[in-house]
Amino acid sequence: MVAGAMKIVFHSPATNAAPWIAEIVNAFPAAQVWAWTPESADRQADYAVLWAPTSAFFDSQQHLKAIFNIGAGADGVLKLANLPPGVPIIRLNDAGMAVQMAEYVCHALFRFARGFKALEGNAAQSLWLPHPPIERKRFPVGVMGLGDIGSAVARAIVAFGYPVYGFSRSLHHVDGVTTYAGQENLAAFLSEVRVLVCLLPLTAETESILNADTFSKLKPQACLINVGRGKHLVEADLLSALASGQIASATLDVFREEPLPAGHPFWTDSNITVTPHIAAITVRRESVAQIATKIRALALGETVAGVVARDRGY
Amino acid sequence: MVAGAMKIVFHSPATNAAPWIAEIVNAFPAAQVWAWTPESADRQADYAVLWAPTSAFFDSQQHLKAIFNIGAGADGVLKLANLPPGVPIIRLNDAGMAVQMAEYVCHALFRFARGFKALEGNAAQSLWLPHPPIERKRFPVGVMGLGDIGSAVARAIVAFGYPVYGFSRSLHHVDGVTTYAGQENLAAFLSEVRVLVCLLPLTAETESILNADTFSKLKPQACLINVGRGKHLVEADLLSALASGQIASATLDVFREEPLPAGHPFWTDSNITVTPHIAAITVRRESVAQIATKIRALALGETVAGVVARDRGY
Repeated sequence: MVAGAMKIVFHSPATNAAPWIAEIVNAFPAAQVWAWTPESADRQADYAVLWAPTSAFFDSQQHLKAIFNIGAGADGVLKLANLPPGVPIIRLNDAGMAVQMAEYVCHALFRFARGFKALEGNAAQSLWLPHPPIERKRFPVGVMGLGDIGSAVARAIVAFGYPVYGFSRSLHHVDGVTTYAGQENLAAFLSEVRVLVCLLPLTAETESILNADTFSKLKPQACLINVGRGKHLVEADLLSALASGQIASATLDVFREEPLPAGHPFWTDSNITVTPHIAAITVRRESVAQIATKIRALALGETVAGVVARDRGY
Repeated sequence: MVAGAMKIVFHSPATNAAPWIAEIVNAFPAAQVWAWTPESADRQADYAVLWAPTSAFFDSQQHLKAIFNIGAGADGVLKLANLPPGVPIIRLNDAGMAVQMAEYVCHALFRFARGFKALEGNAAQSLWLPHPPIERKRFPVGVMGLGDIGSAVARAIVAFGYPVYGFSRSLHHVDGVTTYAGQENLAAFLSEVRVLVCLLPLTAETESILNADTFSKLKPQACLINVGRGKHLVEADLLSALASGQIASATLDVFREEPLPAGHPFWTDSNITVTPHIAAITVRRESVAQIATKIRALALGETVAGVVARDRGY
C-alpha cells in the first residue's frame, strides 16, 4: 500500500463492479480502488461510491470523508440506520439522466395525447382511421419534483406546446411552467393537471403521495406517469381509479417491489404500461466524471453541488 | 352581392367545408365566402383556399389573385396542368404543424432508440428485463428537408442529445445540426445516418428518393421515418431492405395510395408501423389566421412568406 494514496471503495450489491472500478481507476490512476466485500471489510476508504448499499457496509467503514450516491434519489442510502453521522452524502446532478427521463416521459405523454397505442391497434386490423388534430390545452401536464431532472423534463414538455404546471416543496422557477410549492398548494396544482408526472424524491412527506385523494383532484380521464419511486404510489388506489375511469392510463417505471412480482395486477391491466426501471439509467462514464470532479473539489476544501440534506431527505 | 366585397372560395373535396367557411367568415366578416361546387362554378373569387383541388376548379376560376394551399406541401396543387399561370401559390408556414411533426418523429425515434416496443412485448409476458442505457451516438438522425417543419423537427431531436444531420436542396443552417446540400452531397449525408426522417417536398427531384440505393448507404440496422409524401418511397425497395435486415424498422405516415389499401404488405410487416396520415394535421384556426394575415398583406401590396416557386416545386 502506498502511504497517502486516496482510497475509494465501490459498493452496489446488484451491479457488476468491474466496469465501475475500471472507470474510477481511469479517473484516479494513483488511488487505491476496490469493490467492497464482507471479506475486505477491514479496509478503510476515504470515499465511497454506492448504490443501495448493505447495512454491513457502513458497519465496516469508520473513516469516510464523503459518500457518493450513484443516482439522483438517495433514499436507498438514507434509510440505513447506521449511516455514519456527519459524513456528506452527495447525489448525482443529472449526469446524463435528465435527457433520458425527458425522453421517457415525452414518449409516454405523446402516446397518451396523440393516441398512438390506439392507432397501432387500428393498424393491426388494417384499419385506416385518421382523427382530427389534438388540442394541446386539453392535455395540461403537471410535473411533481422540480430538481435538476424534473426541471429538465418540464422544459422538454413546454417545447412541445403543452401547458405545464410544476409542484415542489420549495418554490422553483422554470421558464414557461406555472409552479406551485408546498403541501398547502398541492390541491390547486392537481386541479390544473390531466397528465401527472411524479419525479419527487422519496421522503417521509412524499411517500404514498399518489393516492385516491390525489387522483380525485385531477382533471377527468387523467394519465399517471410514475418515474419517481414505487413507494410514491398507493397501488390499490391506482387500480381503483383505473377501474372507475377516473384515470384513463398509467405508465409506471418504478414499483414497491422490484422486479415487479409475477402475478401482480399491474402486468395485466390493459391501461397500465410497465417498464423495468429503465426510464433514466445511471450512465457510468458521466457519473464517474462528476464524482471525480467533486472529490477533487472536496480535497481542495471547496463546496460541491448535490449534498443531501438528511433532514429533508434529498 | 355587395360590390367591392372580397370574395374567397374554399375547395377541398375530401374535407367538411362548413367549419372552414365559418372560420374564414370569422376572419373576414365583410367578405363573401363560399365552398366551391360545380354548380357554383360561375362565381369568381379573388382568393382560393385549397387542398387537393379538382382540375374542374381551376377551369372555373379566371380572376384569382392568390391561391392558398392549406398544407406545407403544395404538390397537390402544382400537379394540375390547368393551374392558372402567374397567380401566386402560397403554402402554410408551420401553422401548428411543426410541433405535431416534431412530436410524431420524436415518438417514432424514441421507440426505436429506446426499444419501447420490445419492452411492451416483454411486459405482455410479465417479463422484467432491464437493459443498459443507450448510447445516443449510436443513433445518428438524418433529417431530409429543412424548411420550417424540417428545421423544427431537427431542433427538437438535437434537444434530446442525438447527433443530427440535415439534408436539403440549398444549404440551411440549423443550430446543432450538421447540414449537407444538393444531390452531390446526398451520399455523404446518408453515410452518417442511422435514423432517416423524410420531410422533403414532393418534386420531380425528390420523387422515389427513398430507394434501395439510398438505403444501402445508411448505417446498419437503420430506421426509416417517412412523413413527407408516399411518392418519396419506392415501396418494394423498403420491403426488400427490411427483409434483408439492412433496415430494422420503418414508421410510415404517408403512402402512394391513401388510404393504404387492404391487403397491402405494409399493414402486416411486423417491422413497419403504419399511421393514417396524421403526423401533422392542418390546424384550422391557426391556418385561417395565417391566411388572413397574408391576404391583408397582399391587399396592401406587401410580400408574404411561403410563396411557392413553381419551377422547384415548393
